[in-house]
Amino acid sequence: MGGCALPLLPLLLLLLLLPGPAAGAAVPRPPALRALGRLHLPLSPTSRPAVAGNYSVHYFQQKIDHFGFDSDKTFKQRYLIADKYWEEDGGSILFYTGNEGDIVWFCNNTGFMWDVAEELKAMLVFAEHRYYGESLPFGDSSFKSPRHLNFLTSEQALADFAELIRHLKQTIPGAENQPVIALGGSYGGMLAAWLRMKYPHTVVGALAASAPIWQFENLVPCGIFMEIVTTDFKESDPNCSESIRRSWDAINHLAATGSGLQWISEALHLCRPLTSSEDIQNLKDWISETWVNLAMVDYPYESNFLQPLPAWPIKIVCQHLRNPKVSDQQLVQNIFQALNIYYNYSGQAKCLNVSETATSSLGTQGWSYQSCTEMIMPFCTNGIDDMFEPHSWNLQELSNECFQQWGVRPRPSWITTLYGGKNISSHKNIIFSNGELDPWSGGGVTEDISDTLIAIKIPEGAHHLDLRANNPLDPQSVLLARSLEVKHMKQWIREFHASPKTAVLGYF
Amino acid sequence: MGGCALPLLPLLLLLLLLPGPAAGAAVPRPPALRALGRLHLPLSPTSRPAVAGNYSVHYFQQKIDHFGFDSDKTFKQRYLIADKYWEEDGGSILFYTGNEGDIVWFCNNTGFMWDVAEELKAMLVFAEHRYYGESLPFGDSSFKSPRHLNFLTSEQALADFAELIRHLKQTIPGAENQPVIALGGSYGGMLAAWLRMKYPHTVVGALAASAPIWQFENLVPCGIFMEIVTTDFKESDPNCSESIRRSWDAINHLAATGSGLQWISEALHLCRPLTSSEDIQNLKDWISETWVNLAMVDYPYESNFLQPLPAWPIKIVCQHLRNPKVSDQQLVQNIFQALNIYYNYSGQAKCLNVSETATSSLGTQGWSYQSCTEMIMPFCTNGIDDMFEPHSWNLQELSNECFQQWGVRPRPSWITTLYGGKNISSHKNIIFSNGELDPWSGGGVTEDISDTLIAIKIPEGAHHLDLRANNPLDPQSVLLARSLEVKHMKQWIREFHASPKTAVLGYF
Repeated sequence: MGGCALPLLPLLLLLLLLPGPAAGAAVPRPPALRALGRLHLPLSPTSRPAVAGNYSVHYFQQKIDHFGFDSDKTFKQRYLIADKYWEEDGGSILFYTGNEGDIVWFCNNTGFMWDVAEELKAMLVFAEHRYYGESLPFGDSSFKSPRHLNFLTSEQALADFAELIRHLKQTIPGAENQPVIALGGSYGGMLAAWLRMKYPHTVVGALAASAPIWQFENLVPCGIFMEIVTTDFKESDPNCSESIRRSWDAINHLAATGSGLQWISEALHLCRPLTSSEDIQNLKDWISETWVNLAMVDYPYESNFLQPLPAWPIKIVCQHLRNPKVSDQQLVQNIFQALNIYYNYSGQAKCLNVSETATSSLGTQGWSYQSCTEMIMPFCTNGIDDMFEPHSWNLQELSNECFQQWGVRPRPSWITTLYGGKNISSHKNIIFSNGELDPWSGGGVTEDISDTLIAIKIPEGAHHLDLRANNPLDPQSVLLARSLEVKHMKQWIREFHASPKTAVLGYF
Repeated sequence: MGGCALPLLPLLLLLLLLPGPAAGAAVPRPPALRALGRLHLPLSPTSRPAVAGNYSVHYFQQKIDHFGFDSDKTFKQRYLIADKYWEEDGGSILFYTGNEGDIVWFCNNTGFMWDVAEELKAMLVFAEHRYYGESLPFGDSSFKSPRHLNFLTSEQALADFAELIRHLKQTIPGAENQPVIALGGSYGGMLAAWLRMKYPHTVVGALAASAPIWQFENLVPCGIFMEIVTTDFKESDPNCSESIRRSWDAINHLAATGSGLQWISEALHLCRPLTSSEDIQNLKDWISETWVNLAMVDYPYESNFLQPLPAWPIKIVCQHLRNPKVSDQQLVQNIFQALNIYYNYSGQAKCLNVSETATSSLGTQGWSYQSCTEMIMPFCTNGIDDMFEPHSWNLQELSNECFQQWGVRPRPSWITTLYGGKNISSHKNIIFSNGELDPWSGGGVTEDISDTLIAIKIPEGAHHLDLRANNPLDPQSVLLARSLEVKHMKQWIREFHASPKTAVLGYF
C-alpha cells in the first residue's frame, strides 16, 4: 500500500465545536465563534521520500458497544502497521491514537513517528478512530440517527485502542513483550493522554502533542484561544492585529451603504458577490477562520495545504496590514492582499471562494456530533484582548442547535468528571508538548505537573509542529523538543525492558 | 433513620457466578460449582450500640447511560450520610462504594468505618450500586429485559460514584477541599480499587477489603477458591476435610439404593424428603454451599446470620467430622451433626431446609446478570486438591445458560482488558486487605506491588473481617491490619491537606 510521507497538521477540526446548522437554516451568531464552528483544514500533503515507508492495512473486529451487553454487534476497525525498523530485542511499539479523520491521512502526516522508528526499533501502528475513515460501525447509515451515533464517544474509542493493543500483543509473534507508547496530535493527543490515564496497563507512556485537555468547562479562560491567535499577529506587527481588529467595523460600515456589498465583493475578488447581511456574516466568519488557520499553520517552512503557503505565513500576510489608520476602503483592500497570500500564494486563483470547505480526510459529521456531546469547549472573544468582534460563550444556544441537528444535548461537565480536569497528578509518563504559537496551547498543559508528567514548550511552534517530519528549516526549539521526547520515550522503553516479567506481561 | 450497627460480611453473593436457570428448568451440573451459583448470605445483623450512629438518606439524579447520548434519562441513586464526627479542618470523607445489595445493609455491616470516623474526622458516605436496593434505573421493570439491564455494569457504577463525589463536593459546604477515600468489601472492594484506578482525581486512595480483582481469566488458578475452603477445614482437622471429601460418594452410594433417598432425608432431618436424582444434586449443592459459607464467615466470635453461629464455627463443625473411615451411613449422620451447627445452633429448627435462600438485602437478580456479562470468574474443583466433587470450568455452558436466562453472553476477557489484570503497578494508594481464611483471598492481591499498592494479610481473618466493627475477641492480626489501614489513610489525608491548592481542587 501507499507510502507514509510528510506530516501536515492533523486535526484542526477540533475547532468544529459548533455544529453548523444545515445550510440555509443558519442561526445568526457573531463571526469569530461562528467561524470556529466551520473551521476546516484542507489537505494536500507534499511527499517527502526520505521518510516514506510502507505500511500494511488491517482490520480488527470491535464490539460496537464496549460498555453494554444488550447488543453483541461488531464493526471493523482499520489500522495500519509499518514494521520495517521493528526489532524484538529492546524494541517498542509506537501506537498512533487516531483522531477525527481518515487514518491514512494521519499516517501520512505524522512524520515524527517515521523519523524515530529506527532509533526506537519501533513498530508503527496507526489505529483509526471509530466513525471516521473506513471504521464506520453502521456503514453508510452510521450518522443517520442518534441511535446509530450513540457509540461515538472518546470512551468507546479508548476501549477500541485497548482491545486492539491486546489483540496485537496476542497475535503478533514477539509483540507480547514490547512496550507500547501512545502518540497523537490535537484530539489524537488528548486520546493518547487519556489512554495512558485510563488504560495505563496498555501503554507505558504517551506523547500528547498540542492536546488541549483543559479546553473544557472553566479550566482555562474561554478567551484564551483567540487571544493567542491575536498575539501571533500582534507579535509579527502590532499594526497587523490592529488592522484586523479595525477591519470588522470597516466591513460593517461599507456594507451599510447602498453599493457597499458590491464594492466589498469586488475589492475582495469574491467568486460570488455578496447579496445579504447574512452573506456579510459568512464573509466575516470566513475571514476569521483564515486568521485562525494561519495561527495554527504558522510553520517555519513552505507547506502545501489547499494552496501552497510560504514559510512563516503570518509574517508575509502582515506585510499587507502595516497601517490600521487608513480609510475603510483601503483597509478592506489591504485585507484582500493578506487573504490573497493564504488563498492565492501560487497566483493561480481567479477569485476567492467564501464557501471553500475542508478536506474529505477529516470527518466533519463525526466531529460535529462529538462537539455536541462530550467535546464542549467554551470559546469567547471580547474584541479587547483579541482582534475579533466580541462574542460570549452561550451553552444554551449550542444545546438547542445540537438538539435540532443531532437530537442530543451536550454534557459540558462530563469530560472533566471523566478525565479529571486539572487534577491529574497521580498519573505518570505523559509528555504534553505545545507550540507557543498554537492557539490550542491555551487549553494545553504547559507546565510540568510532576517528574513524569512533563510539559514541553516550543516557542516557535505552531499546531504540533513536533509531530511533523524533520525539515532543514525547523527551528532549534522543535529539534530540542523532539530530542527530549525521544529521550523520555527511550527511558520508558528501557524501564519496561528492565522490569520483571510479571510486571511487564499485559494480562496474565 | 435507623442506626448503623454491626458489620456482617457484605457480599458473599459474589459467588453467584452461575446464573441459576429458572426453577424447574435446572441444568445438571456438578455440585460444588452449582452451589457457588446459588450461594447466598442470609442476614440478620446483631445490634451493637457502641458503634451505632445516625445517618440521613439522600437521592442523586444520575444519568442512566453515562457513556452514550442517545438517551438523557435519569434515575435516583440512594446514598446515606453520617457526619457526626466530620470536621472540615483536616477532615476527610470516607466513601463506601456500594456493591450488590441494599446500601443500608452495607452501612449496617461496615462497622470499621463507624469505628474510625472520629479519628479521621470523617464524613461517612454510603453510595448504593445501581440496580440494587432502591436505586433501580427502570423501577420495577429494571430486570425485565436485556435492554433495561444494559446499564448494569461496573463502569456505569463507577461513573455514578464519580458524579456523586463531584456533586457532594459542589453542594456540601466545606466538602470541596476534603480528601475522599473509597472503601469497600468483596465486589465493593473491587469497585473501591477500580474507582481509584479509573477516577484517581475523585479519591486520594482506596481500601479494597477482600477484593478478588484477579479472580478473572487465568490470572489465578481456577481451583484456588475451593482449595482455600478445603484448607480451612483441613487445618481445623485433616479428618474433617477428608470426611467431607468422602461424603459425596457416601451420598451417591446411598442414593443409588431403593430406600436410600428416604434414609438420607431422615438422617439429615430434611424438611422435604428427597425424591429424585435432581434432588440429590441440589442436596450436594446445598451442602457445598454451607462449607463455602462457613469458610467465609469463620469469625473469631459469635455472629448471627440466618441462625446464630458460634465463634470459629469451622472448629465446632469439625468436631463432628473427626473420622472419615466410617460407614456411608455413619458419615452422612456425622454430616448432619455438622450441618446442624450451621443451621441450628440455637436448637430451634425442627428440620433443615435445602431450598433456604438469601437475605433480600442482596440483589440476586442483579448479580446473576453481572455474573453473565462482566463478572466472569472461573472456578473449578478436582477432588484432589480440594474436598469437593470434580468439576471443570465450562465457559460455553455458562454462555448458553446466560443467553437463555438474560439474553446476553459473557465477555470473559473484558474485565482484564478494562482494569489491567495483574499489570496495575502504575497506580498508587490502594490497600488490598485479605483474610487468609477467606477463599476469596485466592483471587486477591496478597503481596505488595509497590510502596503505595499495599497488601495486608490477616492470617486469622475470614471474608473482610477488617471491615467489621471492633470486637473484644478480634485476633491480634486484624487489629494490626486495621491500625495499618488507618495509618495509610491518615497519610493520604495529610498529603492531601499539605498539597498545593491547585492540585487539591477536584475540577477547577
